[in-house]
Amino acid sequence: MNNRRDFIKKSGLIAGAAFVGGSLNACSAGGSKKGHQTNAKMKLTFKPYDLQLKHTFTIASSSRTTTPVMLVEIEYDGVIGYGEAAMPPYLGESHETAAKFLSMVKLEQFASPYLLEDILVYVDSVMPGNYAAKASVDIALHDLLGKLVGQPLHKMWGLDASKTPSTSFTIGIDEPDVVRQKVEEAAPYNILKVKLGRGNDKEMISTIRSVTDKPLCVDVNQGWKDKHEALELTHWLKEQGVVFVEQPMSKAKEAMDDMAWLTENSPLPTIADEALQTVDDVLPLKGVYSGINIKLMKCGGLRAARKMMTLARAMDMKVMIGCMTATSCAISAASQISPLVDWADLDGNLLISNDVFEGVKVIDGKVTLNEHPGIGVVKL
Amino acid sequence: MNNRRDFIKKSGLIAGAAFVGGSLNACSAGGSKKGHQTNAKMKLTFKPYDLQLKHTFTIASSSRTTTPVMLVEIEYDGVIGYGEAAMPPYLGESHETAAKFLSMVKLEQFASPYLLEDILVYVDSVMPGNYAAKASVDIALHDLLGKLVGQPLHKMWGLDASKTPSTSFTIGIDEPDVVRQKVEEAAPYNILKVKLGRGNDKEMISTIRSVTDKPLCVDVNQGWKDKHEALELTHWLKEQGVVFVEQPMSKAKEAMDDMAWLTENSPLPTIADEALQTVDDVLPLKGVYSGINIKLMKCGGLRAARKMMTLARAMDMKVMIGCMTATSCAISAASQISPLVDWADLDGNLLISNDVFEGVKVIDGKVTLNEHPGIGVVKL
Repeated sequence: MNNRRDFIKKSGLIAGAAFVGGSLNACSAGGSKKGHQTNAKMKLTFKPYDLQLKHTFTIASSSRTTTPVMLVEIEYDGVIGYGEAAMPPYLGESHETAAKFLSMVKLEQFASPYLLEDILVYVDSVMPGNYAAKASVDIALHDLLGKLVGQPLHKMWGLDASKTPSTSFTIGIDEPDVVRQKVEEAAPYNILKVKLGRGNDKEMISTIRSVTDKPLCVDVNQGWKDKHEALELTHWLKEQGVVFVEQPMSKAKEAMDDMAWLTENSPLPTIADEALQTVDDVLPLKGVYSGINIKLMKCGGLRAARKMMTLARAMDMKVMIGCMTATSCAISAASQISPLVDWADLDGNLLISNDVFEGVKVIDGKVTLNEHPGIGVVKL
Repeated sequence: MNNRRDFIKKSGLIAGAAFVGGSLNACSAGGSKKGHQTNAKMKLTFKPYDLQLKHTFTIASSSRTTTPVMLVEIEYDGVIGYGEAAMPPYLGESHETAAKFLSMVKLEQFASPYLLEDILVYVDSVMPGNYAAKASVDIALHDLLGKLVGQPLHKMWGLDASKTPSTSFTIGIDEPDVVRQKVEEAAPYNILKVKLGRGNDKEMISTIRSVTDKPLCVDVNQGWKDKHEALELTHWLKEQGVVFVEQPMSKAKEAMDDMAWLTENSPLPTIADEALQTVDDVLPLKGVYSGINIKLMKCGGLRAARKMMTLARAMDMKVMIGCMTATSCAISAASQISPLVDWADLDGNLLISNDVFEGVKVIDGKVTLNEHPGIGVVKL
């Protein structure tokens, strides 16, 4: 117990107090926070931060070198839960929108973080949208709850830490020389995720296949326009050792019939990404895709993600967990549910040069959970 | 912390050792079981028991005076989790089938109860069916996990203990004098559940209305045969202050169109009971009923029940939690998720005269959770 308590204090109370600049004077000192009755209130603070990407990141529709995030802390009775909103610009959130949203979230009205379910229903009701900002609160509350209980979330949820998947490592669209260099950098990873959909798909795959025979998955980001060409490509990709195809065609409602046709005929599983956001979007995808890619920043956090998994499994669909570029905070949170998925793409913290957390690691290519309570992070 | 540990020992280790007759010699003594590494293995034991009903219990299809249950214990590292299989004969399970099933469950192969998810997938795979026996293992494992973590399940799940519903109290089909007497016995309850479907529906309701104006819900147990008569009755029942109708018509596939028609036109919500068993049965009920009645003994336990809730809510359906006649063990387990339901029918332990657990109480008609870890029971 003592080690765990020391860890809670180190990772939460002390590091946290430094982070919010002495605003935690009200914290009571030391001892277990678990058994006693308290009049403590939750206090939410947040701070904008810009992640520096190691490489310019190119997908079918855009390029960028930074990702704005909002770092969130929720303090309760001397324990701090960490959360993060990672906001790639194409999703429409920003430091400004997140700050506005988080300023409106009044956690003081709730007696304790143990009221997680009601609190998150309330958070969802504060404003429509703002899913990354909502996820930051969800993650911080889950981290807090795990720390109060003294257990890592995966253990509270009954999940086997040894069943975590390998994470794919993403190779962006680029010139052959750069692609080959990225594949070399990706030596520690067991599966590579290749961004396709810019018209040079076969060149990308052939370039990668010239330097590695690792299994690949591909993310087309809606890049394929014709279902017959798409089907032909999936056959070719299967021959090239590709294991699934993410968002091959348009997410548009009008394209759903074509997408369902592709899924029915494709030799590879098709995974919905842009085609879904949150819990409400899962059931209508039955028969349209083979699986879904769940991302905390899109769906609003761990609570929503777990529901989406339940829905997908009830429809015999595959489940992948993905991420944005983010610190080890959001990645460690997502990793807690990764023993339940078929595939993981949790490399978002590996693509940045200025992480502010130490958390879940990738070891021998595999997502590797630790025994720290909550989401399993220490603030650096 | 000390009170909680004392409780764990009292409710688990010591009472448990008495129960299985000294077979727990291997238990280590005292101290926290939480922080340390252990080579302990889980050990499952079970014992048949017959519940004595206070009143002969009559539904549309049968009458009885006892219910067979199987009392289950899972011991791990000196802590005991309690479970129960309640087996009304019409569900097809018995002391014999449960004993056979439980003898085949080999928990020793799992390193710890924290592997709940994998363990329950395994338990489900041991044999088809046997959902009450499966629920007994699920409940005992959840109780064990909560005790190891030191928290009641509702708190681990982030649920607000003050949001529990009132439980309905069931009034069986009987002669007017007996019905009036039962309604008087039901004075502490805020909502009564009336069994209908034997042709004397209006007489039953009028008898009850002659002595109380409490809200009623009705359970027809598939007793209504014609959809037009059913619709007419739902209108009459609404005027009588009934709030929902459970399983009004046949669960048969051929009757689904009629049932969907009734739901579409009924002024009262319709709740599926016999029409569903477990997780796989929920999605096909979209549009056929307004809600579902979840019972641990039918679906296999708390893990399945929580999934069913997620599925029902994703389809905007109502959720009710029901029970069999059972001890306070199974009832307390079901009560842990009751803050999430619209209606509860958790009176199964109130209908028996030989309970062997003390657990969750009904206070002023409301399901009232306690702060004990796990499912919240002490063995008597």
